[in-house]
Amino acid sequence: MPIKSLIRSIPDYPKKGIMFRDITTLIKDPVGFRLVIDSLTQRYINGKIDYDVIVGIEARGFIMGGALSYTLGKGFAPIRKSGKLPAEVFSQEYALEYGTDRIEIHKDALKPGAKVLIVDDLLATGGTALAAATLVEKLGARVMEMAFIVNLPDVGGEKKLADNGYNIYSLTEFAGA
Amino acid sequence: MPIKSLIRSIPDYPKKGIMFRDITTLIKDPVGFRLVIDSLTQRYINGKIDYDVIVGIEARGFIMGGALSYTLGKGFAPIRKSGKLPAEVFSQEYALEYGTDRIEIHKDALKPGAKVLIVDDLLATGGTALAAATLVEKLGARVMEMAFIVNLPDVGGEKKLADNGYNIYSLTEFAGA
Repeated sequence: MPIKSLIRSIPDYPKKGIMFRDITTLIKDPVGFRLVIDSLTQRYINGKIDYDVIVGIEARGFIMGGALSYTLGKGFAPIRKSGKLPAEVFSQEYALEYGTDRIEIHKDALKPGAKVLIVDDLLATGGTALAAATLVEKLGARVMEMAFIVNLPDVGGEKKLADNGYNIYSLTEFAGA
Repeated sequence: MPIKSLIRSIPDYPKKGIMFRDITTLIKDPVGFRLVIDSLTQRYINGKIDYDVIVGIEARGFIMGGALSYTLGKGFAPIRKSGKLPAEVFSQEYALEYGTDRIEIHKDALKPGAKVLIVDDLLATGGTALAAATLVEKLGARVMEMAFIVNLPDVGGEKKLADNGYNIYSLTEFAGA
């Protein structure tokens, strides 16, 4: 499968035992990048998923999220790391392996009732995606689906998001951690 | 001018005396976002600027950079904050008002001789853009132009980049700091 074959696997990054799936080799390939965006556009342009705005998660989610906002003709709202957004925000903490991190969204990023497609490059534990969904809901908006290039189902994020009632979609999967 | 009118100005952010130009209000508007990408596409699709790859600067540069890579049919290479890229990198320090920061590019992100269009949301002091250009050149590639949504000419970045021989292009300008 062309998308999967263009993703680079880096052993023991960021630490021993983790096989890092690196999408930079995919997106620097013009045909690979176009295939990613066209595949996602194809899914979301047919009217079966009802959504009206794209939310991208910093930072790699911005790359596909920006392109997808363009192809689908929707606005783009960023979810950023703590302290990066200039206006009033809602903030959500989530667990890392050791400690916690925090992401934020502008309070006026979404209208109440907005129907949101969340975009990120990779689904692993689902911690960031779940925190992003919580932020969307704090604004009174609804998460219609979450789209990823890569899903790592064995890490548990897919199950965690499904258990919380979210639909997920991914272009490719890798087994293992 | 529609693009300028959709940019929000936030006084005293990130600190007293700075008027922050916030593009999130522009890009959450579907027509605004499309206008940004179409305007940049219009400039770079006509063959007058010779380039073959888009380099986006983390993080807001990823949003337009991703969309522009799609519309122009070029690959996308990210320049990221220190410690974010998984493979071997070149690293470049640049000055902040107090202290320094560091950005990085994968050593295999660009082929020697590649012709690069650098994309970011805003040109202020030009420190990050100049560091980004230095990274591109460390890989033996050439910076053909740097594109921004917003230029703040009074802050000095435009002059600094021009003095270093770089072409810049922006969609709109604001006077003052």
